[in-house]
Amino acid sequence: RFGYFGKEKRQAPCLMVVSAEGALTEAQVHLSPTGEEFRSFNVHDINGMRQLASRGVEVRIISEDESEVHRQLAAKIGCKLEEGCMDKLAVVDSWRKDLGLDWLQVAYIGSDASDSECIKKAGVNGCPMDAQHPAKNYSRFVSKRRGGQGAIREFCQHVEITIEKANNENKPRPE
Amino acid sequence: RFGYFGKEKRQAPCLMVVSAEGALTEAQVHLSPTGEEFRSFNVHDINGMRQLASRGVEVRIISEDESEVHRQLAAKIGCKLEEGCMDKLAVVDSWRKDLGLDWLQVAYIGSDASDSECIKKAGVNGCPMDAQHPAKNYSRFVSKRRGGQGAIREFCQHVEITIEKANNENKPRPE
Amino acid sequence: RFGYFGKEKRQAPCLMVVSAEGALTEAQVHLSPTGEEFRSFNVHDINGMRQLASRGVEVRIISEDESEVHRQLAAKIGCKLEEGCMDKLAVVDSWRKDLGLDWLQVAYIGSDASDSECIKKAGVNGCPMDAQHPAKNYSRFVSKRRGGQGAIREFCQHVEITIEKANNENKPRPE
Amino acid sequence: RFGYFGKEKRQAPCLMVVSAEGALTEAQVHLSPTGEEFRSFNVHDINGMRQLASRGVEVRIISEDESEVHRQLAAKIGCKLEEGCMDKLAVVDSWRKDLGLDWLQVAYIGSDASDSECIKKAGVNGCPMDAQHPAKNYSRFVSKRRGGQGAIREFCQHVEITIEKANNENKPRPE
Repeated sequence: RFGYFGKEKRQAPCLMVVSAEGALTEAQVHLSPTGEEFRSFNVHDINGMRQLASRGVEVRIISEDESEVHRQLAAKIGCKLEEGCMDKLAVVDSWRKDLGLDWLQVAYIGSDASDSECIKKAGVNGCPMDAQHPAKNYSRFVSKRRGGQGAIREFCQHVEITIEKANNENKPRPE
Repeated sequence: RFGYFGKEKRQAPCLMVVSAEGALTEAQVHLSPTGEEFRSFNVHDINGMRQLASRGVEVRIISEDESEVHRQLAAKIGCKLEEGCMDKLAVVDSWRKDLGLDWLQVAYIGSDASDSECIKKAGVNGCPMDAQHPAKNYSRFVSKRRGGQGAIREFCQHVEITIEKANNENKPRPE
Repeated sequence: RFGYFGKEKRQAPCLMVVSAEGALTEAQVHLSPTGEEFRSFNVHDINGMRQLASRGVEVRIISEDESEVHRQLAAKIGCKLEEGCMDKLAVVDSWRKDLGLDWLQVAYIGSDASDSECIKKAGVNGCPMDAQHPAKNYSRFVSKRRGGQGAIREFCQHVEITIEKANNENKPRPE
Repeated sequence: RFGYFGKEKRQAPCLMVVSAEGALTEAQVHLSPTGEEFRSFNVHDINGMRQLASRGVEVRIISEDESEVHRQLAAKIGCKLEEGCMDKLAVVDSWRKDLGLDWLQVAYIGSDASDSECIKKAGVNGCPMDAQHPAKNYSRFVSKRRGGQGAIREFCQHVEITIEKANNENKPRPE
């Protein structure tokens, strides 16, 4: 897509959207007898998101379900969270427009069928190795670690490398 | 069984029964010092069961033990749960009769010795890859993921494919 | 040891001792901010111990630490638990004598250095695949599953087979 | 570094510093809906640290974050914990000086980028197999088990062997 004959220029991602269930947190949920839902996340993932945010990338979390745990995590990272999204594509598209971005400037990682449309559209996209098939089929980047267990950190590093490549390519060439 | 010379016609499953311990939830239980039992489930499994229910398949959970966690899960999925079943075969058989179904129209997934008889009888049957031997020996479908970690989602997809195949085969042929 | 030239007759185990930490429960402990220790066990392991007890084998749990979780588990299985054992060999030896048994009639499974002496002495012995080396070196049976994740169920089946073999061998031969 | 032509003599480690997140505890954190953070540790790791301390090695824990769980663990082991360390190298360096030690007498294990400088400096260094790359690149010892799942026990055994080797090498040779 970005090769010698490609029409589109590679662009540095300015917005990274992380799907909550199965990507930021494990697909496994620990349920207490009183109905409390514990979810597990990975400290390296959180550090990776914070680093990217400190480099100026807008980092956001999107979720189909509503979960207090995801609210706690968003507050910990200090980023925006949109919950109860039945149509994730519509939400990310409105974020993109508000920020004045092209889809090529969006990075997206998700793990379930509901993430497929955003994965198709985003310039930089990926999924954890244990993602469901519709999401996995459209992802150019597949992490070596599972969702909620380091997949996001790997994707953050992939996004950073893409930013560096784009910056190098788009430098004016010396004549 | 359903080949060219088979006597029985493949039938679309109308009832899917999921065994709780070791199939819907992990065989691992997290025990607190005060005796609270946390059990882990997989969000993709829950989504798979909901999808199948929305297609008109009757989805039910069966359990030998009694556990508040399984009650919470059944409520979350919106399906019937039968607990404390010492004789699972009798329970599923009465469900089958109440719904006016043949055993060929029943799909069953379970992981322990107590599930063996239902697995033997059901038209579509399966177990998670980490099931105990008596259950594994009788299962025609063995999931690639562990019980409570995505096995049910795989089985749901297997059931959906079986429904489609049955519908295609049972169409009247053009003369 | 029990071969053609062996001096000792194989004997059916009458007492099975299960070490708590790293064998009955996972070596992983989940710690809450208030110091509560959650430990994970496997439902198939519990069922295996109950089955063996119902066949007349005396089943007991031994532990170096003291943990409310292990007390809960012992109550659930309905078996004796000895906690805070600095010298496990002395404890199991006194149990053996009280029950009038030979060490050949004792089955023992454990995972850490403190289990080594009991493993050396017991007629039927084993450890989980993730046991520490001193315990692993002396174990004739090594489970395919990890401690707290099904290792005990495998050992129970090994004990059952040993009981059957011993019963067959010790039958009077027809002349 | 310590071979035939090496200039420096191998020295027995007198101080072992263990990084908390991803080494002593798993990189996975279990988050409750009310924001409680559960972290998992391995009982064999704790036993290994206690054994090393009982042999006279000063054992300490260092952490970038602040976590009640790590305070509970330090109390359980009976060792010093330094939390909220933005510059781990400065902290360990001051510990080293207070104890009158050379960096060659320091053992250090950690898993993230923030541990890299200490890993570079310490005479005996290591990381868990699932460490992040900057830490892994500088580590001479990489454990076979994951962080929080037995990596520290392996490192403790490595430290013990190093102590024995150093003691043997530094013995005055008989003339």
